[in-house]
Amino acid sequence: MVSSMINSLLLPDLRQMLEEDDGPALKEFCEALHPGVAAEVLGDLNTDATWQVLTHCGPETQAEIFGFLPLPYQVQLVKSIDGPQLTRLIEEMPADDRVDLLERMEPDAVDALLPLLAHAERRDIRKLLSYPEYSAGSIMTTEYASLPAEITVKEALERVRKQAPSRETIYYVYVTDEERHLRGFVSLRDMILAKPDTKLEQLMETDVISVRVDDDQEHVALEIAKYDFIAIPVVDNQNRLVGIVTHDDAADVLVEEATEDQQRQGAVAPLEDSYLDTSLLTLAWKRGIWLVILLGAAFLTAYVISFFVSEGGGVTWMAMFLPLVLASGGNAGSQSATLIIQALALRETAQGDARRICLREMMMGSLLGAGLACLAILTATVLVEFYWQAMVVGSTVFLVVILGTVVGAMLPIGFKSLGVDPALMSNPLIAALVDVLGVILYYNIARIAEAAVT
Amino acid sequence: MVSSMINSLLLPDLRQMLEEDDGPALKEFCEALHPGVAAEVLGDLNTDATWQVLTHCGPETQAEIFGFLPLPYQVQLVKSIDGPQLTRLIEEMPADDRVDLLERMEPDAVDALLPLLAHAERRDIRKLLSYPEYSAGSIMTTEYASLPAEITVKEALERVRKQAPSRETIYYVYVTDEERHLRGFVSLRDMILAKPDTKLEQLMETDVISVRVDDDQEHVALEIAKYDFIAIPVVDNQNRLVGIVTHDDAADVLVEEATEDQQRQGAVAPLEDSYLDTSLLTLAWKRGIWLVILLGAAFLTAYVISFFVSEGGGVTWMAMFLPLVLASGGNAGSQSATLIIQALALRETAQGDARRICLREMMMGSLLGAGLACLAILTATVLVEFYWQAMVVGSTVFLVVILGTVVGAMLPIGFKSLGVDPALMSNPLIAALVDVLGVILYYNIARIAEAAVT
Repeated sequence: MVSSMINSLLLPDLRQMLEEDDGPALKEFCEALHPGVAAEVLGDLNTDATWQVLTHCGPETQAEIFGFLPLPYQVQLVKSIDGPQLTRLIEEMPADDRVDLLERMEPDAVDALLPLLAHAERRDIRKLLSYPEYSAGSIMTTEYASLPAEITVKEALERVRKQAPSRETIYYVYVTDEERHLRGFVSLRDMILAKPDTKLEQLMETDVISVRVDDDQEHVALEIAKYDFIAIPVVDNQNRLVGIVTHDDAADVLVEEATEDQQRQGAVAPLEDSYLDTSLLTLAWKRGIWLVILLGAAFLTAYVISFFVSEGGGVTWMAMFLPLVLASGGNAGSQSATLIIQALALRETAQGDARRICLREMMMGSLLGAGLACLAILTATVLVEFYWQAMVVGSTVFLVVILGTVVGAMLPIGFKSLGVDPALMSNPLIAALVDVLGVILYYNIARIAEAAVT
Repeated sequence: MVSSMINSLLLPDLRQMLEEDDGPALKEFCEALHPGVAAEVLGDLNTDATWQVLTHCGPETQAEIFGFLPLPYQVQLVKSIDGPQLTRLIEEMPADDRVDLLERMEPDAVDALLPLLAHAERRDIRKLLSYPEYSAGSIMTTEYASLPAEITVKEALERVRKQAPSRETIYYVYVTDEERHLRGFVSLRDMILAKPDTKLEQLMETDVISVRVDDDQEHVALEIAKYDFIAIPVVDNQNRLVGIVTHDDAADVLVEEATEDQQRQGAVAPLEDSYLDTSLLTLAWKRGIWLVILLGAAFLTAYVISFFVSEGGGVTWMAMFLPLVLASGGNAGSQSATLIIQALALRETAQGDARRICLREMMMGSLLGAGLACLAILTATVLVEFYWQAMVVGSTVFLVVILGTVVGAMLPIGFKSLGVDPALMSNPLIAALVDVLGVILYYNIARIAEAAVT
């Protein structure tokens, strides 16, 4: 079944069931569909109606469907649910999704909710809430399957069966000692293939790839992607197992980080929600701050031009090619920055490669600059009065493209080595910096050429 | 163990083992480490040395490690391997990775290789090679676990155990009839939790979310991410199961597509390999074509300015603010385009929202334009002779920002509705289009203002 079609087919049915308050049909709706599909349809109803639907299904299904609703919708929805029902829902939710929700709810609502939860759940939530944002701890779940090393595969499968209902995944099982130190790892596949009387310590892999609880979430996601894991164990600084991060949360992080980098490069401060879920004012602020910074940089360019203008000479024909010259440098710079920021984000390159990259970009700049300069000279001759003027345009394009590639490549690397996110160096900002330097080049080359000709 | 540290520690050891031709140690190296870690260390050796290491381990481990090497390295490495050994390696590789490799190898080498493979493998490869690039078929594997509906869970677990060694995943098992029609789906977790004498048809979910073999790979990856699947079944147009796509390949697609969109927006034609693996000439071409297109657009701007310049008047002070005025519009346009292209890629918005988005961006443009115009007027008065000139700069900034937001938002939507990738409308191209229109606005506003004052 193609999921995108389901929505438009199911929504009218659902509205009718709600109107008729048809309990059994609503229960059937919740339980027959994949929770992700049910959530998609419910997302088109208001929160009161959605809760009315969800009251007809068991707490487990309720929590599953709830977990597939977008986070801003979840935050709205909890306002429609009263105390005891909300407590039950929160207790049923996976540990990591629960914490994401609580982080977005109003502090007062969270303070009112926490005392109602069971002690163990409350401790788990407090613990997970304490990890810094964007750390492995903030995206992990504490609901992993674990076993001691001494038991046989037969016993292990028995125990896994008992743990299964409350664990995020049982396909990877971690072997720990009494102090929760991570000693090994067994996949359910290996257990199923092994002889029932094999001891886990014979079967397990002892060379476990893990991440630290304070590692960056992007690093965690890249490790999972690199090794094709379903989950990765998270340990504290004494190598004690504290949680796991699963492949689906890692995929969310990859999408989120790529989206943020893209937004930064497009000169938008990263959004928390989707484009249409973000309010106009928030969006205006996240765009406005960057536009003001860029306006400041552009004003610097205007200021530099004012010097040359006040000296008179050359302005008329030079103004024609001002946007062309600056755009060439800015565009080449954006290209370099895009490539370098990606290479850094995907760990394809390290800061140590800085000299190699700089050389590469200088060669690239010369190659591209020479090509564009020839084209610029050829076309400029159509519009200018004298041939030397076209040569000024061409030589400036050549130099400004080299300038753009080097600045565009080096600034993100410089940011990275200062510990700042390289994607912060947005493409428009690089273009703006190249503008200021480009104008100085342009007018100086023109002055020298004019002096040589006259 | 932290994987990034492993490399620098293991590489010297490995070189020494190679020098001493220490067979048992090399075998130990291959088999004790996670294949991903072994591949990372081997990637720093030349291909002959890598093959020398790999000859010391069994064909299964060999294929596993090989699969974790970067694709361009794999293509080089197969040249170091002679016929029978290569055949065995190719036969051991997972079906999807094998096809990725064959697609990148030289056609002559593939033609020489295919007749050496077993008949079944050859048919499988031919079949997978026939699916169009970027389709579900091109990223799926045919090695899925499937069972008939009539058997019990006990029997099912027995059969899964037998299928396990050759299947990409056994955690999701698909239920099919004799004609391979997809009838249902059972997770290994559900089987383990169920009573042994339960029939699969009672246990299985019949409302299976699947994709079509000709669906776009990005759609497939987004479905897997949306529903948190480990794998998704791929069916043909008669609902016959032809393969599965697993979560790890979906994650690769997500990263690949985000990277490509980002490159397009930075005005680089998408690269096939990583930045440092791409040759300087390929890179120059992928950047050069865009720079030439953008130069053409910039020349149009120069041409438009030449009209106003030839009419004389206002040029001196106007040139000062030319880059500022154009950058304001271009930057606002880049922001809108970035946000809309993302929203379209992540399916957050559909073309049907076009009117809503257009209105939203016009409001956004007015808001941002008004703010920037005030700042521009305030700062411009410092550099210009007359107050009305600052007003010209301000009003142009206001209009050009609105123009930028609307053009930046509408062009990707327009592209999408024409069936063209919206990310093709790169940010610099939007900036270039806004430049041409911005110059016309700027000079006309100035002309009107000048006429009004004098």
